[in-house]
Amino acid sequence: MSLIEKLQWRSAVKKFDTTKKITATQLDSLLSAVQLAPSSYGLQSYKVIVVQDAETKAKLRAAGYDQPQITDSSALFVFASLTTLDEDFGKKFIDLIASTRNVARETLQGYEQVILGTLSSRTDEQKIAWSHRQAYIALGVLLSAAAELGVDAAPMEGFDAGKFDEILGLKEKGLTASVIAAVGFRADDDRYSQMIKVRRPKEELFIHI
Amino acid sequence: MSLIEKLQWRSAVKKFDTTKKITATQLDSLLSAVQLAPSSYGLQSYKVIVVQDAETKAKLRAAGYDQPQITDSSALFVFASLTTLDEDFGKKFIDLIASTRNVARETLQGYEQVILGTLSSRTDEQKIAWSHRQAYIALGVLLSAAAELGVDAAPMEGFDAGKFDEILGLKEKGLTASVIAAVGFRADDDRYSQMIKVRRPKEELFIHI
Repeated sequence: MSLIEKLQWRSAVKKFDTTKKITATQLDSLLSAVQLAPSSYGLQSYKVIVVQDAETKAKLRAAGYDQPQITDSSALFVFASLTTLDEDFGKKFIDLIASTRNVARETLQGYEQVILGTLSSRTDEQKIAWSHRQAYIALGVLLSAAAELGVDAAPMEGFDAGKFDEILGLKEKGLTASVIAAVGFRADDDRYSQMIKVRRPKEELFIHI
Repeated sequence: MSLIEKLQWRSAVKKFDTTKKITATQLDSLLSAVQLAPSSYGLQSYKVIVVQDAETKAKLRAAGYDQPQITDSSALFVFASLTTLDEDFGKKFIDLIASTRNVARETLQGYEQVILGTLSSRTDEQKIAWSHRQAYIALGVLLSAAAELGVDAAPMEGFDAGKFDEILGLKEKGLTASVIAAVGFRADDDRYSQMIKVRRPKEELFIHI
């Protein structure tokens, strides 16, 4: 199957098979895909909380309009934006580039100024919204990689972000929940994956110039 | 190569090979991937302007901080959010579900109420920000699909959205630019794709619970 066929196969599964769990290898592949997702300036101004603990998932389900996929999936990915993107954050990112590429930090001064300038020109609210959008790129990459692997991944916005932050202790970690995805395998009788996929026709979705 | 290896290969190319153009088949595969990208409720509250016209690309480059990848890529994908997500938009979406699945519209009344309720509970500003985030999922899927096909795709936020809207006539179409991606093939001497990719280590990026 090509990736297109796999994207056709993928579905926002509501009913997961609780007896089938993703393997450690599959999970690690998904983590690698998320890690490789691009982000503005490469900042990756988010973290991803991977929840497999049953008790935590049960609490999150209560904060997620009781959606069963939160507990029944193998793992719940909670994308969370950093809430403090300050000068220190920018400088440490430059440190990371220097050490990864084994180059002198001084050679990155121009790039550092661009990044620090961007960070200082935006309000905290703007920066969090910006980070949320970056997390959505990583979500898109996760969903594509899961489809490629034949693993189900169902993205969800229907949850109480404030309660998620509380349950996962995100505020103390300088994080706030962006979007979540339940990862696992569809149940044979999942209704949603059996329905015809609804997508806007290409003539409507695309404008060619 | 696995998708992970292909994501490792992908790069935010700055210098495209102007002599190599993506084929109609490759472009169509990318459009299919974007079309299949999931979105909240499946609403796909965005359009994608695919710019191949040299004159238009030249104007966009001037509104995109003169970044050469805007003109030198085979195609520039401009993701643009719808600016009016009103009751009519919600109802037409229900029409689309009914016709795609060949079900009576009445059977979708519950879902229609959920969607109309969501749309009416948010301000225009909130809905546009929400649509931008959905467009970023589609961007993530595009970038993954391009990597899978061995096509380069470089996402960019560095452009003047107001000027893009003006050049592409988006306001009249009820759209506003979200994010863009240049698609094509890297030049042999593109510096960026030759650098070591910088990513946060998994121990930093992921929190396991």
